[in-house]
Amino acid sequence: MDATTLCRLTIGQLGELIRSRDISPVEATEAALERAERLDGGYNAFIAIWRDGAIQAARDAEREIAGGHYRGPLHGVPIALKDIFATRGCVVTNGSQIYAHDVPDDDATVVERLRAAGAIFMGSLNLYQFACGTVTNPDYGPVRNAWNREHIAGGSSSGSGTAVAADMCFGSLGTDTGGSIRIPAVLNGIVGLKPTYGRVSRHGVFPLSGSLDHAGPLTKDVRDTALMMNVIAGYDPKDPTTSALPVPDYTAALIGEIDGVRVGMPQPYFFEDLQPSVREAVMRAIEQLAGLGGVVEEQTLNHLEQAPDILWDQIAGDAGVVHADHLAAHAEILDPDVRQLAERGARLLATDYIKAQQGREAIKQELLQAVERADVLVTPTSPIVSPQLGDDTVEISGQAVPMRPMLRRLTLPFNLSGLPACTVPCGISPEGLPIGLQIVGKPFDEATVLRVAHAYERLTNWHEQRPVVA
Amino acid sequence: MDATTLCRLTIGQLGELIRSRDISPVEATEAALERAERLDGGYNAFIAIWRDGAIQAARDAEREIAGGHYRGPLHGVPIALKDIFATRGCVVTNGSQIYAHDVPDDDATVVERLRAAGAIFMGSLNLYQFACGTVTNPDYGPVRNAWNREHIAGGSSSGSGTAVAADMCFGSLGTDTGGSIRIPAVLNGIVGLKPTYGRVSRHGVFPLSGSLDHAGPLTKDVRDTALMMNVIAGYDPKDPTTSALPVPDYTAALIGEIDGVRVGMPQPYFFEDLQPSVREAVMRAIEQLAGLGGVVEEQTLNHLEQAPDILWDQIAGDAGVVHADHLAAHAEILDPDVRQLAERGARLLATDYIKAQQGREAIKQELLQAVERADVLVTPTSPIVSPQLGDDTVEISGQAVPMRPMLRRLTLPFNLSGLPACTVPCGISPEGLPIGLQIVGKPFDEATVLRVAHAYERLTNWHEQRPVVA
Repeated sequence: MDATTLCRLTIGQLGELIRSRDISPVEATEAALERAERLDGGYNAFIAIWRDGAIQAARDAEREIAGGHYRGPLHGVPIALKDIFATRGCVVTNGSQIYAHDVPDDDATVVERLRAAGAIFMGSLNLYQFACGTVTNPDYGPVRNAWNREHIAGGSSSGSGTAVAADMCFGSLGTDTGGSIRIPAVLNGIVGLKPTYGRVSRHGVFPLSGSLDHAGPLTKDVRDTALMMNVIAGYDPKDPTTSALPVPDYTAALIGEIDGVRVGMPQPYFFEDLQPSVREAVMRAIEQLAGLGGVVEEQTLNHLEQAPDILWDQIAGDAGVVHADHLAAHAEILDPDVRQLAERGARLLATDYIKAQQGREAIKQELLQAVERADVLVTPTSPIVSPQLGDDTVEISGQAVPMRPMLRRLTLPFNLSGLPACTVPCGISPEGLPIGLQIVGKPFDEATVLRVAHAYERLTNWHEQRPVVA
Repeated sequence: MDATTLCRLTIGQLGELIRSRDISPVEATEAALERAERLDGGYNAFIAIWRDGAIQAARDAEREIAGGHYRGPLHGVPIALKDIFATRGCVVTNGSQIYAHDVPDDDATVVERLRAAGAIFMGSLNLYQFACGTVTNPDYGPVRNAWNREHIAGGSSSGSGTAVAADMCFGSLGTDTGGSIRIPAVLNGIVGLKPTYGRVSRHGVFPLSGSLDHAGPLTKDVRDTALMMNVIAGYDPKDPTTSALPVPDYTAALIGEIDGVRVGMPQPYFFEDLQPSVREAVMRAIEQLAGLGGVVEEQTLNHLEQAPDILWDQIAGDAGVVHADHLAAHAEILDPDVRQLAERGARLLATDYIKAQQGREAIKQELLQAVERADVLVTPTSPIVSPQLGDDTVEISGQAVPMRPMLRRLTLPFNLSGLPACTVPCGISPEGLPIGLQIVGKPFDEATVLRVAHAYERLTNWHEQRPVVA
């Protein structure tokens, strides 16, 4: 198998070939490292490539597997981490030069779990500064889209989206406070899951907003998300917000059919102001879900219009605490968005923060009830395809509107509600840019979300349309 | 049976006599009404006595029971409500003249449940204004202690404590944001339970701080608390913070023994700065628990010293929202404590509120872990017995310290943590004032809390020492 073909494999496929000893972990890791080193100059997805550590870990995996100690589907598989997950012995920048010499002593819990599962860490992935800065990270530069390098990768897990979509790693971890896993996934035509709040530990992940932050995988297909969730999900005594509910085998949920599954279309809010190609692709996808036996019903909502303001009041207050020291000591080198957010947070009144929490509670209850009446909700993941680098506005219904709020508009309600939400590719725009469908589940029911996403993916295989770069 | 003897019965005893038709609901209600009308001038526990409605409801109950439709242990039993629970057709003041003409259309959920169980509502009980004002409610005056009218009743459910202890009603409802059920219960020598956060609905209860407010019963003995909890506990779709966990039969937990139950003594914080008579009574009670087969162990804590400041930052912020309109329209008639709290809340920064939430989380985890290592925790309920009306300070270890913070000190950590906490009488001071033991349980394990309280009560019967007033 040539290196391009090898690097295009999914985790599921590569894992199978490693298990059967048709490919060795060292071969896979060498191919991925070589590809990332050769191509990433054009994408800027990596902040650092950890060649030596990766090769060493791949050799260890190879020896273990040869010795009959196969750990499971992640064993020997090269993945990469948004540069905000503590990884022992490696610099973790959080996207800021403030931390450019910071080497954690301990792994984040999810990193520790992936390490124990035998995954190989290839490097750290670029991101918006502190997971909340601008597209053009002032310290590490912008990440380019895997489909068109003149377009943005989305964020804040920008490197996580592009590195997977450009086959420079087999899967990645991201974090999501308002859409930061799902947005780079949709803009790069891959799968991204924000799990239920409390399903995946955030211990060792630099915080933005404790009650909105989620960690989760970005992968080439749905099965790979299930495989990564099987490793990272579950209770962690070091993160008291995690749930003790048992973790199912997520691959067992991928049964290939959705007969009788109730598919809610939440209205209004989620189907307004869409680019025509997005609307068309998403409506076709919903018809296809119906064709697979899904029972599509509208679900009425009332309080969603305030969701973005509520999210930002909450994030601002939390960022005001998280970044108080950065503001005091490093204001001049903060990304302008981070600085503005932290300054706003430092001035915010408790009563406004509390009103945002109360508004959030109303939205949370409403979305919870909508998903309880159905089995899943479906929406577009983003109302727009990836804008060009440098664009601050985007045209919607003939009007120029600010770009960044549009990108987050449909993902952020599920940070407020904590519900699990997955994006799966569902089309390609006339400009050749990917479109995604967001599938949302009941609390801790990632299994049904992945079941629906997988059945849809199996029918359409949009993820296989992503560009092949040799 | 003479009226004094009748009024001294517990709910359990009266309910049994009503069930067997030895006492009629009308007879019991007449006796309680007559007693309250005759004696309450000396206590000021009631804001209103609802004679006509109570007699009508008692007649209905009598007819139903005569017709063979016995609803259960609360049927025909006269109780009273802290004047902060919405009760349809009745003025509910929340302790302020601002609401002196406010008549709710609907019952609070707990009132509705008690009504459905056949309880008779005798009247509304005095309280600190909005459950957070001063001992001397400027609109409705101070409530006097059932053991000594020169002493305070505690608060904020002051009327709920005195009315039960003085046998003017058979049980009552209170609310507890920092100790407001347990403090009037301990100072009046009765039983008070703050259930787990989420166990009892607050729908229709005027809020002080949504994440700290709890509703619960104040009763003459532990069995009565179990009987009231059997009616009021459980999921309420109108209060989304309530849990869907099933509600056990709490009377079934009262098995009279505690053999092998692990009893944790949390240290430090909870056993410091106690009045000598309180220390003596509580240590003796703990020895008696050991004598009953309890396994007493110390549990070490670290973060408790900040608990009061954390609680007040949180309450201030929340009160800033709840009382914004009162502050704007009625500042001059607000209780000075309410006004000061709301003004402080209106100025509080979001970052300080968030830091309080984070500090709260640390305390919550620590107390949760302590109670998980044991089965229950025990502490004094209050470090002091009831002070005299008008006293702003109290002498502790030879020093005069502010009185109100002392009263709340040992109860408020369990508002921060949401753990269930019950006070049960455990002694009488040389001045003739009651002392209480606080028993704290695991989340949603009110059953074990009541089991321990009941076994202790059965051995000691301190609740029977309360004054008899003819």
